Amino acid sequence: MSDMRLVVVGAAGRMGRMLIRAIDQADGCTLVAAIERPGSAALGEDAGILAGLPASGIKVTSDAAAAFASADGVLDFTAPDATVAFAKLAADAGILHVVGTTGLEPTHLAELAEAAKRTPIIRSGNMSLGVNLLAALVRKVAATLGTDWDIEIVEMHHRMKVDAPSGTAVLLGEAAAEGRAVDLAQQRVAGRDGITGARQAGTIGFAALRGGTVVGDHKVIFAGAGERLELAHVAEDRSLFAQGAVKAALWGRGREARLYSMADVLGLDAL
Amino acid sequence: MSDMRLVVVGAAGRMGRMLIRAIDQADGCTLVAAIERPGSAALGEDAGILAGLPASGIKVTSDAAAAFASADGVLDFTAPDATVAFAKLAADAGILHVVGTTGLEPTHLAELAEAAKRTPIIRSGNMSLGVNLLAALVRKVAATLGTDWDIEIVEMHHRMKVDAPSGTAVLLGEAAAEGRAVDLAQQRVAGRDGITGARQAGTIGFAALRGGTVVGDHKVIFAGAGERLELAHVAEDRSLFAQGAVKAALWGRGREARLYSMADVLGLDAL
Amino acid sequence: MSDMRLVVVGAAGRMGRMLIRAIDQADGCTLVAAIERPGSAALGEDAGILAGLPASGIKVTSDAAAAFASADGVLDFTAPDATVAFAKLAADAGILHVVGTTGLEPTHLAELAEAAKRTPIIRSGNMSLGVNLLAALVRKVAATLGTDWDIEIVEMHHRMKVDAPSGTAVLLGEAAAEGRAVDLAQQRVAGRDGITGARQAGTIGFAALRGGTVVGDHKVIFAGAGERLELAHVAEDRSLFAQGAVKAALWGRGREARLYSMADVLGLDAL
Amino acid sequence: MSDMRLVVVGAAGRMGRMLIRAIDQADGCTLVAAIERPGSAALGEDAGILAGLPASGIKVTSDAAAAFASADGVLDFTAPDATVAFAKLAADAGILHVVGTTGLEPTHLAELAEAAKRTPIIRSGNMSLGVNLLAALVRKVAATLGTDWDIEIVEMHHRMKVDAPSGTAVLLGEAAAEGRAVDLAQQRVAGRDGITGARQAGTIGFAALRGGTVVGDHKVIFAGAGERLELAHVAEDRSLFAQGAVKAALWGRGREARLYSMADVLGLDAL
Repeated sequence: MSDMRLVVVGAAGRMGRMLIRAIDQADGCTLVAAIERPGSAALGEDAGILAGLPASGIKVTSDAAAAFASADGVLDFTAPDATVAFAKLAADAGILHVVGTTGLEPTHLAELAEAAKRTPIIRSGNMSLGVNLLAALVRKVAATLGTDWDIEIVEMHHRMKVDAPSGTAVLLGEAAAEGRAVDLAQQRVAGRDGITGARQAGTIGFAALRGGTVVGDHKVIFAGAGERLELAHVAEDRSLFAQGAVKAALWGRGREARLYSMADVLGLDAL
Repeated sequence: MSDMRLVVVGAAGRMGRMLIRAIDQADGCTLVAAIERPGSAALGEDAGILAGLPASGIKVTSDAAAAFASADGVLDFTAPDATVAFAKLAADAGILHVVGTTGLEPTHLAELAEAAKRTPIIRSGNMSLGVNLLAALVRKVAATLGTDWDIEIVEMHHRMKVDAPSGTAVLLGEAAAEGRAVDLAQQRVAGRDGITGARQAGTIGFAALRGGTVVGDHKVIFAGAGERLELAHVAEDRSLFAQGAVKAALWGRGREARLYSMADVLGLDAL
Repeated sequence: MSDMRLVVVGAAGRMGRMLIRAIDQADGCTLVAAIERPGSAALGEDAGILAGLPASGIKVTSDAAAAFASADGVLDFTAPDATVAFAKLAADAGILHVVGTTGLEPTHLAELAEAAKRTPIIRSGNMSLGVNLLAALVRKVAATLGTDWDIEIVEMHHRMKVDAPSGTAVLLGEAAAEGRAVDLAQQRVAGRDGITGARQAGTIGFAALRGGTVVGDHKVIFAGAGERLELAHVAEDRSLFAQGAVKAALWGRGREARLYSMADVLGLDAL
Repeated sequence: MSDMRLVVVGAAGRMGRMLIRAIDQADGCTLVAAIERPGSAALGEDAGILAGLPASGIKVTSDAAAAFASADGVLDFTAPDATVAFAKLAADAGILHVVGTTGLEPTHLAELAEAAKRTPIIRSGNMSLGVNLLAALVRKVAATLGTDWDIEIVEMHHRMKVDAPSGTAVLLGEAAAEGRAVDLAQQRVAGRDGITGARQAGTIGFAALRGGTVVGDHKVIFAGAGERLELAHVAEDRSLFAQGAVKAALWGRGREARLYSMADVLGLDAL
């Protein structure tokens, strides 16, 4: 089978350049286009050079539609509004859309669901094997333990991160809520500060730490009477997420139109 | 149903006194005898007073056989040789034997298995819900991840603990080995010190910390390329283990002769 | 020297009963009165029995002024308004006031400072040696490292705690602010939730976890470029704080009127 | 002042290439030679290319003496015997020797001390600011707390590391021993496994975890009665150590012949 032809959007950003390197290192896929928004200083630059690789002959452009027309898939860690726009273009072109963008609101998710009727979309708040396995464990433990075990989720990321809690923390909270068969929106408690009163049974707490260059640490704590179970993930290297996105793309090639998760890609559903 | 009649052996030790208090606090069971070895200074003392409770009218004796004859079960956190002796007496009396003793060697385990042909025995290196749930998770994760994820187990206990690694760490290591379908004895690496060479794939490492008054912390680390999954348990209070033993006894009442685990008691096998 | 005569206020609460036990166990001091607020169900009860000790002959009363008149010191882990009232009574009686109350606002602190002109007051958000040593280390590290190392403070406490962040976390944050010679109120960031923007240099972040029966965990993280320094304290047992308060009382006997800290008691200032 | 002329020995190894990149990124210094052992496959290669940089025009050679003759300093993270040989050559040439090599035995250290009579040597088991600050804190805490607080040191490194405990763990243990004014060799306990007996007061325990790609985590635990103080360092990125070595070289330029530590370089002695 010929190599899968991949486009990277947001190609000049930190994740974009990681994606270009991950495609370079993986077998079975090739970079065919690199997209940045109109006006970006990176337009016209060589995508390989941008990523710290030898020259690739691929110049950064802003014409996503043209790029998608001769590709098999697009890797997207941009921002919510851009991702929705790319989803429509990918669906028009009938190519796979791998979405690692965080901070998506329900309206964005609804638009992705709509696009997924026309083309396969793989979306996850975190593309690593470890985090997705952690989510499966959290779901199971939450389903096993009663609400006399309190659930708290704490994460730490580098100082440049602009949103809290992280998309991965939300993903883990959703797994906990699924395990308990409750709605996270109803049980979510974040940002404790001041006179909070005693903890309410059944709630799921979030706390966010920011500082330095931390790639991403997450811990889910189940706190019972006299004992605690703590399930944690440490991401040592951001390239992990880019590698996961490439793995997702290779898995998704030729799948039918539908919204997929990393649990699908990694075969964790049967866990 | 009348209360389950329980005997505590090693009644004057730290765990023995905790067991007496746990029986006092639980519904559905009553202390009927408290046993210490011949020569113990505690012989003749009131078991309730020993445990910091009001007088119970039950004096500590050394005659286990007589005590077992009019009891339904025995709670035993003593030492390997004593436990083997108590197993025979419990089997003779046909009563349930709950064993929380650690440091059992294969020969001791073989004797317990023999006794379990005649009477039900519930044995665990750790009687808490959290640790047993952790073991189930470790088994599952070890089965899911390949040996390119290294497994390390680290524990910390108070300064008085005389063996390393802890019985609970071994229990967790066994769960990991089961998940990988390997023999722990072949893969076990403990006590690294000096020029060890690079880590061998497939091994399961153990490390033991000792100090202060730590009740018991355990962490199982799955270390992959660029990411780690860490599953941990914190025991805040030693009474947890005594409560778990009483819960096991109540569950085991009337069961058929066989060796049971806390996973049976807690219904974790289906996990 | 005769035993120091101590009064416990809030005697029927969890900390009050711990204080009664700590006095019982310590050398050099004796409980002479136990105070509860008017209307408390505990009035008239024996203080020893309340604390799980043999009867002491001391009945709980609501007349603090009378009790202070024939005492050398009072141990107080109550609430801010009550503590201010006790401070006046202690100053009138000229006895030592040991204050472990948390949640004190600047107005409360001003009233304590006023009372401390007339009688010695020892106040700390945390009475343990470990936490006070940690605060000294945090002050020093904050003074050594520039603001290119971000400071985050995270704590976990049991589900019944009603305020966040904990008094101890605030104490640690104040130590960090002192080290940097800044005002904590200006730099404090707590309760991140939503679109927060990138972290601002020089801020000190707080996060609070609540669940189960956790006595009190605190961690101060200094996050630099590519490395982190993490200084943490784990309280295993609440009796630690009661023991620290008794130690403070014994140290404070006969001191001149002034506001003291646990760093004074523990001799950590020279650190 | 002209750029400091630096030589990297072990230039084709992982640390060697990091050192080449760190020199490239730093102001005030220039790579002038790259050394590998005779027979290395890297001889004749361009040092910049080896390090993932543009071509530098500097070919890897095995002639250290010639290289040292026209340099100001040498950066050395090789192996104990090689380091001793380089120390002699650096002393002959009268240039600064920065040593990050681990696993040095007393005989190696004695030879370094001899060479340091002729030329300045800066040696540390760890070149990061965070670890050296941690060591200063550990020394101070060990001096403040009595031996009723047990000291344990646990570290985790990647699966390729061949020695245990790490050089950094030993450095931290030495700081603890200095704080207590004891000899580490006498108090050192490592590799607990089997029936160890209760912990002996005053000992300093070590445990080593190995797995995955962990750059280097270290934790020093002071475990008292009912509380613990835990001081930890996380290295996120190996380039940290190379950057520290370059910083050390720049600091050491023109210093008198003597053995220096990173505490000297970082000005931590006054702490």
